[in-house]
Parts: sequence; C-alpha cells; structure tokens
Amino acid sequence: VQDWRITLAWDGRRFCGWQRQPNVVTIQQVVEESLAAVLGGASVTVTASGRTDAGVHALAQVASFQTDVPRSPVAIRNGLNFHLPPEIVCLDASHAPPDFNARAWSRSKLYRYRILAHPVRCPFRDGKVWHIKKKLDVRAMAEAVKPLEGAHDFSSFRASGCTAAHARRFIVSATVTSVDSDEIHMEFVGNGFLRHQVRVMAGTLVQVGLGRFTPARIATILAARDRCEAGRTAPAAGLWLVRVETGDGPINPRPPQ
Amino acid sequence: VQDWRITLAWDGRRFCGWQRQPNVVTIQQVVEESLAAVLGGASVTVTASGRTDAGVHALAQVASFQTDVPRSPVAIRNGLNFHLPPEIVCLDASHAPPDFNARAWSRSKLYRYRILAHPVRCPFRDGKVWHIKKKLDVRAMAEAVKPLEGAHDFSSFRASGCTAAHARRFIVSATVTSVDSDEIHMEFVGNGFLRHQVRVMAGTLVQVGLGRFTPARIATILAARDRCEAGRTAPAAGLWLVRVETGDGPINPRPPQ
Repeated sequence: VQDWRITLAWDGRRFCGWQRQPNVVTIQQVVEESLAAVLGGASVTVTASGRTDAGVHALAQVASFQTDVPRSPVAIRNGLNFHLPPEIVCLDASHAPPDFNARAWSRSKLYRYRILAHPVRCPFRDGKVWHIKKKLDVRAMAEAVKPLEGAHDFSSFRASGCTAAHARRFIVSATVTSVDSDEIHMEFVGNGFLRHQVRVMAGTLVQVGLGRFTPARIATILAARDRCEAGRTAPAAGLWLVRVETGDGPINPRPPQ
Repeated sequence: VQDWRITLAWDGRRFCGWQRQPNVVTIQQVVEESLAAVLGGASVTVTASGRTDAGVHALAQVASFQTDVPRSPVAIRNGLNFHLPPEIVCLDASHAPPDFNARAWSRSKLYRYRILAHPVRCPFRDGKVWHIKKKLDVRAMAEAVKPLEGAHDFSSFRASGCTAAHARRFIVSATVTSVDSDEIHMEFVGNGFLRHQVRVMAGTLVQVGLGRFTPARIATILAARDRCEAGRTAPAAGLWLVRVETGDGPINPRPPQ
C-alpha cells in the first residue's frame, strides 16, 4: 500500500466545508469521488490536516490517503484536476512516508482573515473578504492581537457548539497588518484552533478597530473564559487557510501495544 | 448642467464589452440604467475613455456624463453602487470641469495582460488570467517587448475588423515582468490602442516565451505591417484596464466656429 500527500486549494463559497455530511456537498466528498475516478473506481478516504467551515477558502490544505492502485504523482495530480470542479484544484501530489496522516502529523497552520476596508465593495473580492465600509484603526488592532499569542484557554473565543475536550491552545504568532492599501490581514499561526476560534478572534479585533473595544480589553476577554464577552463571529468568507506544516510523524503517537 | 467624472471597476466575464449593442448586455447599458435610477428616471449617456472588449476587466475606467439633476458626489457613488450588479462598482464620483469628456480628454491608459504560468489551474483566477501550463521564458519576452515602444504603424497587431482610419499609435512604455511567483504581466502604456492590439501583442509575445519566435522577430513583424505575421490574439480574460489619465481639455479640440 502507498501513502500519499496531496495539496489542495479551493474557493469555499459553494461548499459546506471540508467534512462529509448527509444532504450537502462538501470538499471531502468531491475530492474522494474525483480520486476514486482516478483510481479506477477504488473507494478511498481522504484525511485533511483539519476541518474547515462552510465558505472558508484554502490556498494550500494538506491531505493524505492510502491506496494500493499504482499511479504516478503527476497522474494523481492531473487526474484529480481533470475530475475536480473548477472551484477545487490539486496543486501537488507526492509519495508520503509510511502511515503519513495529514491530521496527526500536522504541526502548524497559518490562517489569514482578510478584511476589505474601503467605502465601496470590490467586484473581484465578493465572498473572499469581509467588507467593512467604516474606518478601522489598524494600529489599535495590531496592539490588541498580541495578548492572544502563547498558550491560553480560549473559551471566550470558541463557538458555543464546539465539542473539543478542552479550550487550551497555543498561538505561535498573531499579527494584524495593512496590505495593498485597502485590505487588513489578521494572521494566526498555531498547531490547532477551536471551532470558529479564528473567526471569533477576528470579529473581536474588528470591535477594537471600530473603537468600540479598547486594545486592552482583549486580555480581559481572554481571562474571562466566557464566549459572551467576545465580539461577533466574523463571516466565513474572509477566512483563508494559507499553509500547513507537517512533521515527521504523528504528534500524539499511539503507544506501542 | 453639471459635468461628472466617475471611476468604474468591473469583472467583464458576463458582459459583451463596454459599448451598447442590440440583444446583449453591455457595461455601458447597465451603468446608464443604474444612473438613470439614481437621477430619478432622467436618461443619460455615459462616455468611457475608450471601449473595452467582451470579457475584459477594468480596475479603474474613467467615464463622464452630464446632468441637470442635482446630486452630491457621495449620492451618485452610493446610488450607483446600490443599483449596479455585483460585477460592476463605482469607485468614485466627482464634479468635473465644464465639457469634461472622458474619451476626448483621455491622455494615457495602462493595460495589463495577466498570464498564469503554472502547471495547474487556479480556482481563484478563472476568467481573470490566460492560463498557460508550459514554461515561458520571461527574459526573452521582456527583451522582445522593447521594439514595440515608441511611435509605429501597428498594422501587424490590429484585428482584421479594426475600423480605425490609420494604424499609427504611440506606446510610451511596454514591459514584461514576473509577479508573485506564478504570474507574468505584460503592461502597455499609451494614448490609444487599436482594436485587439494589446491582445495580439500579448499573443505574439507568448510565442516568444514558448521559444517559437525569437525576440528579434517582433521588430520584423512590426515592420511587415501584416496581421498574418503576428501570433494569435490572446484571450480577452487576461486583459485588464488598470488606469486612465485625463488632461485638462480635449486632445483634439474642435476649432472655434
């Protein structure tokens, strides 16, 4: 059996997120169906480094699968791109080390939240940014984001329906910058994020940018461990999974039996 | 009567170019209908700095109109954006000097032709770039573009159906550069361009990039004044009107009567 690593990009507008669900179209389902076509009908399970919400975009998601059907890396990549709909693309396919699992081997992810900060909408960025017409104080947002770096209990920034066992996560880097004169990017690097965590952090930082919260209030909200203290969840449309780094083995290996 | 200057951006995929035509939807028609709604039903003619082909995009087209209906600049801009479809936006509206005419006052235009040079397609740039999977020699293209600068008879680079009285045009600047690791941009600044001129130049430069034409052949093609010597017309999807500069009066003023 061969382990494979594939890198996928997608425009998430038309899909109900990554994970297979009944009665809706998801990225996982479409990728698995396309891959089955490439593998001559053999059904296959594709594991991504993590789930993404409906409407979220990916520039380079990493995923893994196993198959005993012999195919070259170029045949996998080009075959997938032939079968995938226009909104999804396989950027790369390569042989992976034995037992490679994109979820278990994932070490860090970079998420970018894009805001279009301009009085008028942009015909080229519909569904790809959160459009905010009011002026945002980027310096205040850049100051406010810093207390989110490090290991914290992010209970204040998780979706009410989040099912993770605990809310402790580690953010390696959190930044807010102006880009190309009309965008503001909030970028977060970490091993894993809670459900809606990046979007709740983004929505709360926008409150700072609008002058409704002081930058210092972010630390207070974090300490409260109460979702009601934070701002609204920012729309999925502005969220981009930019990069995934994988290590050389699973992060929580099963103990030898 | 008040003269107005508006700046428009659009995604051209769904439209049959700027100019009104029977039985198809054009940018001019949609902008004029939206403007009429803003002006309480008064019909109005909008003049752009030039026509653009079906499928061509604009980042900042300049257009003009006259009306005696009193409106503030913000009311014109926001009203247009309320009525325009998502693919078209008014970036700015302002009072213009008397008799301002975007076509007659236009001094220079910057057109950008975008190529996605990558073995796989991109889900975010469908219809916005010309996707070429083969390797292109950007240095050869950058060398080849230089003879196009200056005043020349561009008969070799005009559409066979072009109705301009003569083919002499002046290109102030012509460049080919690599951008963001996977795009190649060909940029042309000039006062006016013949029908399909930028697209024929782009298509011919791609032949150089593919190694089918030598860089020196561009000068030979230019001297031939024969459309059959040049390469194919590049697809409209890659062409962007980036910027228009207007002067302080018409470039060919009518002689005083």
